[in-house]
Amino acid sequence: MRIAVYAGTFDPITNGHLDIIERAANLFDKVILAVAVVNYKQTMFTVEERYQMALDVVGNIPNVEVECFDGLLVDFCRQKRACSIIRGLRAISDFDREFQLALLNRQMNGEVDSVFFMADAKYLFISSRFIRNAAVLGGNIHGMVPESVEKILIEKFSDKNKRQGGEL
Amino acid sequence: MRIAVYAGTFDPITNGHLDIIERAANLFDKVILAVAVVNYKQTMFTVEERYQMALDVVGNIPNVEVECFDGLLVDFCRQKRACSIIRGLRAISDFDREFQLALLNRQMNGEVDSVFFMADAKYLFISSRFIRNAAVLGGNIHGMVPESVEKILIEKFSDKNKRQGGEL
Amino acid sequence: MRIAVYAGTFDPITNGHLDIIERAANLFDKVILAVAVVNYKQTMFTVEERYQMALDVVGNIPNVEVECFDGLLVDFCRQKRACSIIRGLRAISDFDREFQLALLNRQMNGEVDSVFFMADAKYLFISSRFIRNAAVLGGNIHGMVPESVEKILIEKFSDKNKRQGGEL
Amino acid sequence: MRIAVYAGTFDPITNGHLDIIERAANLFDKVILAVAVVNYKQTMFTVEERYQMALDVVGNIPNVEVECFDGLLVDFCRQKRACSIIRGLRAISDFDREFQLALLNRQMNGEVDSVFFMADAKYLFISSRFIRNAAVLGGNIHGMVPESVEKILIEKFSDKNKRQGGEL
Amino acid sequence: MRIAVYAGTFDPITNGHLDIIERAANLFDKVILAVAVVNYKQTMFTVEERYQMALDVVGNIPNVEVECFDGLLVDFCRQKRACSIIRGLRAISDFDREFQLALLNRQMNGEVDSVFFMADAKYLFISSRFIRNAAVLGGNIHGMVPESVEKILIEKFSDKNKRQGGEL
Amino acid sequence: MRIAVYAGTFDPITNGHLDIIERAANLFDKVILAVAVVNYKQTMFTVEERYQMALDVVGNIPNVEVECFDGLLVDFCRQKRACSIIRGLRAISDFDREFQLALLNRQMNGEVDSVFFMADAKYLFISSRFIRNAAVLGGNIHGMVPESVEKILIEKFSDKNKRQGGEL
Repeated sequence: MRIAVYAGTFDPITNGHLDIIERAANLFDKVILAVAVVNYKQTMFTVEERYQMALDVVGNIPNVEVECFDGLLVDFCRQKRACSIIRGLRAISDFDREFQLALLNRQMNGEVDSVFFMADAKYLFISSRFIRNAAVLGGNIHGMVPESVEKILIEKFSDKNKRQGGEL
Repeated sequence: MRIAVYAGTFDPITNGHLDIIERAANLFDKVILAVAVVNYKQTMFTVEERYQMALDVVGNIPNVEVECFDGLLVDFCRQKRACSIIRGLRAISDFDREFQLALLNRQMNGEVDSVFFMADAKYLFISSRFIRNAAVLGGNIHGMVPESVEKILIEKFSDKNKRQGGEL
Repeated sequence: MRIAVYAGTFDPITNGHLDIIERAANLFDKVILAVAVVNYKQTMFTVEERYQMALDVVGNIPNVEVECFDGLLVDFCRQKRACSIIRGLRAISDFDREFQLALLNRQMNGEVDSVFFMADAKYLFISSRFIRNAAVLGGNIHGMVPESVEKILIEKFSDKNKRQGGEL
Repeated sequence: MRIAVYAGTFDPITNGHLDIIERAANLFDKVILAVAVVNYKQTMFTVEERYQMALDVVGNIPNVEVECFDGLLVDFCRQKRACSIIRGLRAISDFDREFQLALLNRQMNGEVDSVFFMADAKYLFISSRFIRNAAVLGGNIHGMVPESVEKILIEKFSDKNKRQGGEL
Repeated sequence: MRIAVYAGTFDPITNGHLDIIERAANLFDKVILAVAVVNYKQTMFTVEERYQMALDVVGNIPNVEVECFDGLLVDFCRQKRACSIIRGLRAISDFDREFQLALLNRQMNGEVDSVFFMADAKYLFISSRFIRNAAVLGGNIHGMVPESVEKILIEKFSDKNKRQGGEL
Repeated sequence: MRIAVYAGTFDPITNGHLDIIERAANLFDKVILAVAVVNYKQTMFTVEERYQMALDVVGNIPNVEVECFDGLLVDFCRQKRACSIIRGLRAISDFDREFQLALLNRQMNGEVDSVFFMADAKYLFISSRFIRNAAVLGGNIHGMVPESVEKILIEKFSDKNKRQGGEL
């Protein structure tokens, strides 16, 4: 059985992530969406919230599971008997980072290899960071995130009085 | 009347910004330099200071106005009846971010489109961030920012005792 | 006598840095490895620790010296009568930043020029930041940093209980 | 009256070109689509064919005209009293070339400035060269070029016996 | 059964290609190395030679087959019931082209998706074109191509009198 | 004595090349400008013309010599006892190619290392190819090439009747 891990903070999960997961699920027997416990940077949502949003979105795909993980991704892969790390390719600045990560991970665990998928053109320029920034400023993010996530973001930032500052 | 908005933190306004504004002012009937109120990141200057520095620099260009804004840039554009968002192209790492921003803004407000200008070669590698870093360390930034801004930066960082650390 | 300065935070020094230093030492009469005092961002190691790690690694190269510096790099170069700033080329995202830095430094001190070296292919994707992240998560960084540095990192992060969060 | 020139070989005109033209036509009083006479490289279509295909596609946009030109683009602009050169931004490899062209043209004629537009995400990765290659191999290019162009390409390459070689 | 196609001109096959094939063969039930019949550009070796060199190199990998193909790659995939197109990621300039190709192919045949692998760091900068140029000039290409290919290249270019011009 | 080689086709030599040579001449005891004999691609000028133009431009720099070479650059370096290959960094698309070349050359001759210099900002976007294209179309290339080269280009392309086609 070929198992792959698709890891990230998913803060929140976007339609770009979803597109990658669906492509990966076509290729692997099982795909584990691994939500990273993160303490060295602030996230907008707690790991429980990020896990739940992901589960709501991919829960209906038969060969996709959602788990939280901490520690090294390559250690998590080993523990799950995964042969591949799924990565989504987006823009150029990603690309360098992806190269670095893939080589570093390969060096730390040669048995797991990175496999890259490309999201649909319309998602190529979506990132969780921009989604968060837009949502904070009250922007319409329809079509960029799954509907369940959109609803959560709208509720969270519906109070205009909480907003301060501007840009994008 | 074709109105365009050139938004940013302008922390501080540089000769690269000024170059872009002048090119845009040749093309549009009115250009609004929109200084973003920023609360999610630390700026070196307050929004009032950033507004004033910008006004000192572009106040004499007949069809350029300076305003502060908060909230979404595309909402500000709509409110000002602007048809275009002015963006300055610099280096490659900018380019990706610009692509993301332009597509995101287009999705949030299809009536406003991003238009890109390229600064003179000698300004292509100037950024406010590097200017700030250089100024903090006592570097000579002559020719990179307008004279009025240079004067303010020199005054602010003239006290060598306040400086700590090094690099660039 | 041709003197060059290779500056950075070296937090910690990696095999990629070492590779660049050795190449530079072949070309210049003296290379000064300049460890930046840094106060505007958090480093993992103090400047004393970073200085000591660097010294342990390059101390045996006859024409390489290690020094700490604060203030502007170009001022440090002038003071040391250095004609060149050594820079290591890695990935694309580096490249833009390097262009900006080199032009800014050239403008601030036209007598010092940046000279770029390229590390061996196997080090092209190593960065101190990724090394730190991997070490924090308990990853095996053997072959990416000098052995003395590896030992220090292992000791520092041997206590699994201190670790929290995951990814890479 | 603000006049802009959008020049290229348009071999053939694509939906990406059309998208840029429509954006430019919103901003300028007149946009001249300038089809370059080309002798230093082989084109798939003659200049007359390329002119005609472009005219069929943009002929109904009121403020867009189609012309052929030879000689320098900046000379053509001067002759047409155009203030701007329209350029479409696509991928990174374009970007460098665009920078070079814009700076070179600016140096040759400082009165004309380059203005960049970004096509819709779904056209960002379309190029005439790939369209030609796909069409030669019998690929379905529906949605990438205007229907009139698609029809011409299909007719031209309908004879499978003429095809040789493969790839893409 | 999951079948993937790894297509190219393989003029000649390099150790970088081999590295990608081996990674893909770990993931798919069958990998077809598809050597493109090429008539629109000059190749150094005929399609028969390129086929034979590839076969010599990968013939011993149980689940890898070598075939020649002409026409569209996506049509070849359909005919072979392949679900994936294997692509090797190398440098940035590749990256753009890969994006364009993947999106174009996806549009022409939505049932086949591109999957990207990354070669070992030491092969990241090897390309058939550079290998050819080096071999023509009598360069030592040991370690960059399989030994059987190296032998063929050396024989082909052993006659120094045939060489003209220089560079690299 | 530290000797470096700066190789290229120099078709023709530009102010960007000259800028790099002058920087290199400050660092090395001797710089050999090596004009490549080229037969696999068409050049605008013969190797004798390219040699002569280069000599006219750098002949007065005491520690710079001009030579023609064919065969491998690394072999030429060995023969000249050069320790370094000088390369000029320009735009991103260059950068990848430079990485590939540097690693390939290093593998073919480990005793010679590539050293990169960055031209002045105003030359960063000049390439011989664009200069040639502009000159052919009658463009004003003043300030981009040395005066002696400008004169030659103007004479060569003064006859407007010889020109055909347009663009840039």
